[in-house]
Amino acid sequence: MRTIDLIQRKRNGEELAVEEIAWLVESYTRGEIPDYQMAAFLMAVYFQNMTDHEVGAMVEAMIASGERLDLSMIEGPKVDKHSTGGVGDKTSLIAGPLAAAAGVKVPMISGRALGHTGGTLDKLESIPGFRTDLTADEFRKQLSEVGFAVIGQSDTVTPADGKLYALRDATATVESTALIAASIMSKKLALTLDGLVLDVKVGTGAFMKRQVDARKLAQMMTTIARRADLRAQALITDMSQPLGFAIGNALEIMEVSQTLQNAGPSDLTRISLELAARMIHLGKLTTTIEEAREVAQKKLLDGSGYQKLKQMIQAQGGNPQVLDRFELLPNATGAMEITSPRGGFISAIDAEEIGLASGMIGAGRDAKEDSIDAAVGVVLEVKVGQKVDEGSVLCRIYFTNEERVTEAAERVEDAFRISAQAPEPRELILDVVG
Amino acid sequence: MRTIDLIQRKRNGEELAVEEIAWLVESYTRGEIPDYQMAAFLMAVYFQNMTDHEVGAMVEAMIASGERLDLSMIEGPKVDKHSTGGVGDKTSLIAGPLAAAAGVKVPMISGRALGHTGGTLDKLESIPGFRTDLTADEFRKQLSEVGFAVIGQSDTVTPADGKLYALRDATATVESTALIAASIMSKKLALTLDGLVLDVKVGTGAFMKRQVDARKLAQMMTTIARRADLRAQALITDMSQPLGFAIGNALEIMEVSQTLQNAGPSDLTRISLELAARMIHLGKLTTTIEEAREVAQKKLLDGSGYQKLKQMIQAQGGNPQVLDRFELLPNATGAMEITSPRGGFISAIDAEEIGLASGMIGAGRDAKEDSIDAAVGVVLEVKVGQKVDEGSVLCRIYFTNEERVTEAAERVEDAFRISAQAPEPRELILDVVG
Repeated sequence: MRTIDLIQRKRNGEELAVEEIAWLVESYTRGEIPDYQMAAFLMAVYFQNMTDHEVGAMVEAMIASGERLDLSMIEGPKVDKHSTGGVGDKTSLIAGPLAAAAGVKVPMISGRALGHTGGTLDKLESIPGFRTDLTADEFRKQLSEVGFAVIGQSDTVTPADGKLYALRDATATVESTALIAASIMSKKLALTLDGLVLDVKVGTGAFMKRQVDARKLAQMMTTIARRADLRAQALITDMSQPLGFAIGNALEIMEVSQTLQNAGPSDLTRISLELAARMIHLGKLTTTIEEAREVAQKKLLDGSGYQKLKQMIQAQGGNPQVLDRFELLPNATGAMEITSPRGGFISAIDAEEIGLASGMIGAGRDAKEDSIDAAVGVVLEVKVGQKVDEGSVLCRIYFTNEERVTEAAERVEDAFRISAQAPEPRELILDVVG
Repeated sequence: MRTIDLIQRKRNGEELAVEEIAWLVESYTRGEIPDYQMAAFLMAVYFQNMTDHEVGAMVEAMIASGERLDLSMIEGPKVDKHSTGGVGDKTSLIAGPLAAAAGVKVPMISGRALGHTGGTLDKLESIPGFRTDLTADEFRKQLSEVGFAVIGQSDTVTPADGKLYALRDATATVESTALIAASIMSKKLALTLDGLVLDVKVGTGAFMKRQVDARKLAQMMTTIARRADLRAQALITDMSQPLGFAIGNALEIMEVSQTLQNAGPSDLTRISLELAARMIHLGKLTTTIEEAREVAQKKLLDGSGYQKLKQMIQAQGGNPQVLDRFELLPNATGAMEITSPRGGFISAIDAEEIGLASGMIGAGRDAKEDSIDAAVGVVLEVKVGQKVDEGSVLCRIYFTNEERVTEAAERVEDAFRISAQAPEPRELILDVVG
């Protein structure tokens, strides 16, 4: 087999054989294929996509590149939830505790995502003392005892994915349906899960800008899961405006706390409840999804989800009091109000622009080495559809360093569209796949 | 400027600014952009193409990466001829001498092309003693005295092109109209030429499989030339079957000799005469193309083109007697006849398959380090349109090593299509651009 021939055939739109994909991934992981050939291959995949067969082969090869994390000794249904990522998306820290409170074991292996804002790990690390580097045994123990644990990706699980992701990140090949699906599913199938709920975001603030692409990604992932005998469902949810009000790491932990106390934004609450219900249902703790929804709702209202998150924070070395006393979290030193230039209706809040602005002031990272400023971010005062007057506060920017705040503020201002008429209401949960 | 942003914008189909392209090429040549990012960029260009502006910027940057070769002190019109390459294409060694015999100075800087069969340099190097490594001064002197000289590419002229070509070759990004145009034109514009005749091949045996793509390449190159004040014309010529009868390095030198003695295949003679005429006309040695055609024809019939090639071989250290005594050239030790399985008309001879078969037995190289066997190749006995009987010889394979001959023979057999009816005659010169 010659790498150049495989690149060329993929470039020409041909389907590669399972053994060919496996050979590529293995040889690349072992350092026998140079980065420049893999980069060309990935860009060819970006344009030509991969079939379900090819993605399945890639997932298998990526899992085979490392160790599996066996969870079979843990009692109870093991169900994970994964989001493709969006601006203000903190649903993992709400749906996870709610499902765990209902008896699901929620083993989350999360990313320190590059991009506008931090990943789930970054958000949790804004909590003083919080550890994400549990050993496999500590992780299993916490799952058995607390039912919810969040750790970072290990170098021993799917190392091929780690190496490929770093290359994709440097070569503008992240935004490929097939490569996203392969990356996510290899990490999920390296665990012995009973169920998986996927939240595929679509809109300006997500990888997938169009619903048709989000649907393709959802179908690709659920197909891979089905072939591996993993029960999986994907929700396709709106990411045209930020989710909830808060964008930024510590700011989002505060909003998670409010939401688990049933005082959060309605969009965030609604999606988190639905995700938790799907986790409970896939975990077969209820026979119908309607029952699962009732259980999730109950775990929100009786505060047991909130208590579950506190237990998890405590178990991972963090101070659970941060959920009640926000002054224990990193706090910004400066704030700037963005006001409406005129009266009207908020017809759009461009999530990507808000995300980019947050990233500019330190809420995200451009490169893996960059550090994150946990305190900074943006808190919206309004959401799409709301009526505002001239001079109404649209949002506040929280910062610790004046550098680039003006530039960020301009971006934030540009993100708001104000029109004379109220916009058509938009569905939050657009579709369910699988 | 960040490389990742430029890759992403090209991937998304945006046009990059002149300064952005220049920065990419300069930084890459200096080793400041890694191969893997450039590989991703090149594959994005493969899919999204480049505008004339972008290609122009790339050409400028590649020229600026090295030295120019000044030919202004040489009297007479300096006109080069360049072919995009095809199977059995030895027109440079026929049109060049004919034009030189008419007074054109023909400074050819040629390639040791990767691919099925050798480049012009490889063909010439089958002549014992022939040197392609003339110094710039030797090159200029020979041009003044003989009017025709062929040398290899120097590392000091357009080094960026050399580095980029090697990367393209390893990443399946050679076949991009924009990148082919930029590579060819940077090398041509690094010389101070008065005219340039391009032969853009189209068909199974050429980079360009479709006439519409060949036309685009021709237009792109002539546009670049026009902007650089270089008179240029491009012929689009058929490469669906091999050109002439001979494919293979020494075998092609023999056919060149025959053709310059007006005893060559009619297709090869016709294209070579037209190319020579265009060179003479662009060199302003005649006022009309019709006059130029008469001059070229005269230089063929009176043997002065043939004498010119002998002078050139002699000047570059080769033995000019090889043109009369073919036994002085490397000769194969074995031959195998391929015969027709049935009677009928030759409706197609797949040039690519013939080229690949020749490459298999040693006429070409897969990697830059590979050596070429000058003696081996294929000599056709028939051309498209001819009537054959069952058992008629279609061609002979000449080899020096039995290894892979059977495999090559199968490919050669598959290359011939024999049908009951005579095929429609096909134009040899399909279009003229510029």
